[in-house]
Amino acid sequence: MDTVSDITEMQRRCLALREAGKRIAFVPTMGFLHEGHLSLLQEGRKQGDVLVLSIFVNPTQFGEGEDLDTYPRDFERDESLAREAGVDLIFYPTAETVYPANYCSYLSVEGSLTETLEGACRPGHFRGVATVVAKLFNIVQPHVALFGRKDFQQLAMIRQMVRDFNMPVEIKGMPIIRETDGLAMSSRNVYLSDDERRQSLALNQSLTLAAELARGGESNAHKILEVSLKRLTTEPDLVVDYVKICNADTLEDVEIVDQRSVMLLAVKAGTTRLIDNNYLIAKV
Amino acid sequence: MDTVSDITEMQRRCLALREAGKRIAFVPTMGFLHEGHLSLLQEGRKQGDVLVLSIFVNPTQFGEGEDLDTYPRDFERDESLAREAGVDLIFYPTAETVYPANYCSYLSVEGSLTETLEGACRPGHFRGVATVVAKLFNIVQPHVALFGRKDFQQLAMIRQMVRDFNMPVEIKGMPIIRETDGLAMSSRNVYLSDDERRQSLALNQSLTLAAELARGGESNAHKILEVSLKRLTTEPDLVVDYVKICNADTLEDVEIVDQRSVMLLAVKAGTTRLIDNNYLIAKV
Repeated sequence: MDTVSDITEMQRRCLALREAGKRIAFVPTMGFLHEGHLSLLQEGRKQGDVLVLSIFVNPTQFGEGEDLDTYPRDFERDESLAREAGVDLIFYPTAETVYPANYCSYLSVEGSLTETLEGACRPGHFRGVATVVAKLFNIVQPHVALFGRKDFQQLAMIRQMVRDFNMPVEIKGMPIIRETDGLAMSSRNVYLSDDERRQSLALNQSLTLAAELARGGESNAHKILEVSLKRLTTEPDLVVDYVKICNADTLEDVEIVDQRSVMLLAVKAGTTRLIDNNYLIAKV
Repeated sequence: MDTVSDITEMQRRCLALREAGKRIAFVPTMGFLHEGHLSLLQEGRKQGDVLVLSIFVNPTQFGEGEDLDTYPRDFERDESLAREAGVDLIFYPTAETVYPANYCSYLSVEGSLTETLEGACRPGHFRGVATVVAKLFNIVQPHVALFGRKDFQQLAMIRQMVRDFNMPVEIKGMPIIRETDGLAMSSRNVYLSDDERRQSLALNQSLTLAAELARGGESNAHKILEVSLKRLTTEPDLVVDYVKICNADTLEDVEIVDQRSVMLLAVKAGTTRLIDNNYLIAKV
């Protein structure tokens, strides 16, 4: 396994691999790898002849006052996990080379897909994500790229971007990996105090309650949202950013729940912002 | 020579050519080919194993009230000129496939490079150009792409976009090709009446006057601009959008002329908008 930080060198290697007929599978991450990332690497290992992992805490997707500076980092641990997972190449660039002096180009997916949910709470976030993913695709030249469904809206946006920009890459969305008690894996979980960690179980529990209702025949989105919101607000230290039931393709709010309905939520546990989601009826 | 309209088919062919080790040279155009385009194809023929020409009148780079509907088109003539020029593949998509229903992703180069000159006169123009060029690059997968220097600001923006987005393509800027009387070649020249055509010679003549002054030792940009503006305004039917002397890299206005100074102008001759430019001292 090699680690490459230089962009030109990385691109040169990846173009050569492509020209040699190798299929490149790519898992872009911000590092501090957990089981969720490892499940992407495991599938990537099956999908490609060459498995590339990128580790880059992308500054342009963090807003004013967000956790860019404190985002957890541990490259040595990541490197060792990547080796175990069968990664061939780690791309590990610096912010100064990804965004050099006079950098001024951005890619935006516009409209409802990025204006709602996370887009409404985190202005500029998705522009930063779209931009860095497009750049990484140009550098790594993947045939297939894998993303976790925990960032459901991000995945939807990336699919739209790939379609709209005719990027020659297949996007694979992968299931959310959870702790045994149900909390969705996230690099940010390390921020949680013991008490916040316990209260955060309400996220998955409110999703489960909603799915039970929907699978039991309740189709009124408002009624389902009421129950889920009630579960979340029983916890004293959780502050709800949003709980919504949306169409999985458009992310527009739905009134009547169907197979394409997904519940998405964002909650602050103390200073830590957590997101989670689940299809209400469809099992994936 | 083949003509391909289907995006997926075009991309499949180009990816296969790349994988087969072929070097792809690409000339993106809006068609209605003139000597300027042919000079790009001639150089492209030398640069690549495979020469690709795209013909697409891109709606997203035209503003409200501009000439999208009347832009001159003659595919049969273009096809015949392309064949003579040694083109291997023409990419000739429809607007409906380039921008399908629910299209919503755009690439923007922000800041002074696109806010001034054409960017100030034609809001949204450069966003449309950057978006379609990025899409075409993803479809055609060129190793080298050729652009004319008549669209000086467009070329500067594309270089910035390619650098910022780490696109693995070399950009070659090519000299302006002029009619024997000095008018820069443009597909839009066919709009001109005989009288407008005659008056339009003032564009090149004002650039030449400016270069003579600068090469003769005048370094004061204001004084040079005065002389050029005077030449343009002697023509009764020309309306000047701008005449500026800018730094060739930043496109910021300069006070004192040097080797990097370029004069750029945009003029309306009747309803036809013409642009032209020239380095003041440097000969290229």
